[in-house]
Amino acid sequence: MSNITELKEKYLKPIFAETNAKRVKQWPVNSDNLAQYIDHTILKPDATDEEIIKVCNEAEEYKFRSVCVNPVNAKLAKSNLPTVDLCCVVGFPLGQNSTKITVAEAKQAIDDGAVEIDMVINVGWLKSKKYDEVEADIAAVADVCHQNGAILKVILETCLLTDEEKIMACILSMNANADFVKTSTGFSSGGATVEDVKLMREVVGENLGVKASGGVRDSEKAIAVINAGANRIGASSSIKIIGK
Amino acid sequence: MSNITELKEKYLKPIFAETNAKRVKQWPVNSDNLAQYIDHTILKPDATDEEIIKVCNEAEEYKFRSVCVNPVNAKLAKSNLPTVDLCCVVGFPLGQNSTKITVAEAKQAIDDGAVEIDMVINVGWLKSKKYDEVEADIAAVADVCHQNGAILKVILETCLLTDEEKIMACILSMNANADFVKTSTGFSSGGATVEDVKLMREVVGENLGVKASGGVRDSEKAIAVINAGANRIGASSSIKIIGK
Repeated sequence: MSNITELKEKYLKPIFAETNAKRVKQWPVNSDNLAQYIDHTILKPDATDEEIIKVCNEAEEYKFRSVCVNPVNAKLAKSNLPTVDLCCVVGFPLGQNSTKITVAEAKQAIDDGAVEIDMVINVGWLKSKKYDEVEADIAAVADVCHQNGAILKVILETCLLTDEEKIMACILSMNANADFVKTSTGFSSGGATVEDVKLMREVVGENLGVKASGGVRDSEKAIAVINAGANRIGASSSIKIIGK
Repeated sequence: MSNITELKEKYLKPIFAETNAKRVKQWPVNSDNLAQYIDHTILKPDATDEEIIKVCNEAEEYKFRSVCVNPVNAKLAKSNLPTVDLCCVVGFPLGQNSTKITVAEAKQAIDDGAVEIDMVINVGWLKSKKYDEVEADIAAVADVCHQNGAILKVILETCLLTDEEKIMACILSMNANADFVKTSTGFSSGGATVEDVKLMREVVGENLGVKASGGVRDSEKAIAVINAGANRIGASSSIKIIGK
């Protein structure tokens, strides 16, 4: 897509190149073990304590990359994850909070044990072409993450976006110093597609991670999105995906 | 349902009776004008500034009861609502934030102009029978609302609950000094039903308001939920409902 080159020339900032090398080292595609690609995820609002603990136990047993929970469950999950990383969503799933609140949410999640934060981009602002606001919102959350030893993934909610908006969302995430772009919340009208993962990888190159989430429910789809460029998968059907 | 009496006897606290009379006066069913029942609502994550302003203008023109928006749009909406009240959702739509963050969200929404706050109950805690935690979570948000001149509605997300859980959610909302119980976020598997509104009104009596939201899209359904006991409706099809 020639669009990518044009939009990058117009919007990608020099600051990105400066911090670039560090991130390449930090987050490579690094495993031939499918489980190590997967953030084992439980985000439904009616999840009981028992279900959260079960997901943590599964992650420990099968050595998933992380467990991904809502902020209110961060502490409970952390206390049941002796070895596996904790990932926590913020501003989820609408991305319609003020920056100040999203930053406070991220800080508390990190205090509660999260080392990975998945935030939702402000889709309304993106569609209103308020690019500076979108970038500043992500940058503020990226800052609080990096200052406290966590990484940031930015959920684009690709099912709501045009291709140009997807490209812009990737560029703004790069400018804002995010560590990953991620396709979907799993709570909107669609999930990860091979085409979207391919496009996102094309835009971010080797510089950011790409997480495919939403609708990845078997090994076939998991391998398809990895081949398309994903180096992380968000799933609740993780055990089925690894064939256990 | 005899269950209601039993659960009220077991769980409804004396504190409720003390503050009861004040609330009855404050929030009666008070209008024969359908528009005055309606919180004109725009909560989709991809709403542009232009769409938010349009909804505000419609609310001013047709004299809806309030405009209901996501926190990030509170200021923009307020500046376009010279006479109509502003309502803002918090912890939305999953209700899976820590109490501290939800309280901070509510405070900021009020600072930005909201006089009504719609929070989501922690469904996971309700299903885990952590009743004290559910009540304390609501009470903390009710306190910050009341101390700053706003009222609190508690969204139960009825489509995820058993009848006993719906009754308990109403009782805990009463104990926590909330002003309204509300059926749905509109982002889960179902919206307001006549049966749920009837049940909720039966539990709260004349003491709290009942807001029906999600799937109320025409005047027929609006009148049905009002007849079942609702004194407020949340809708995005508000103009169609009032037949304009």
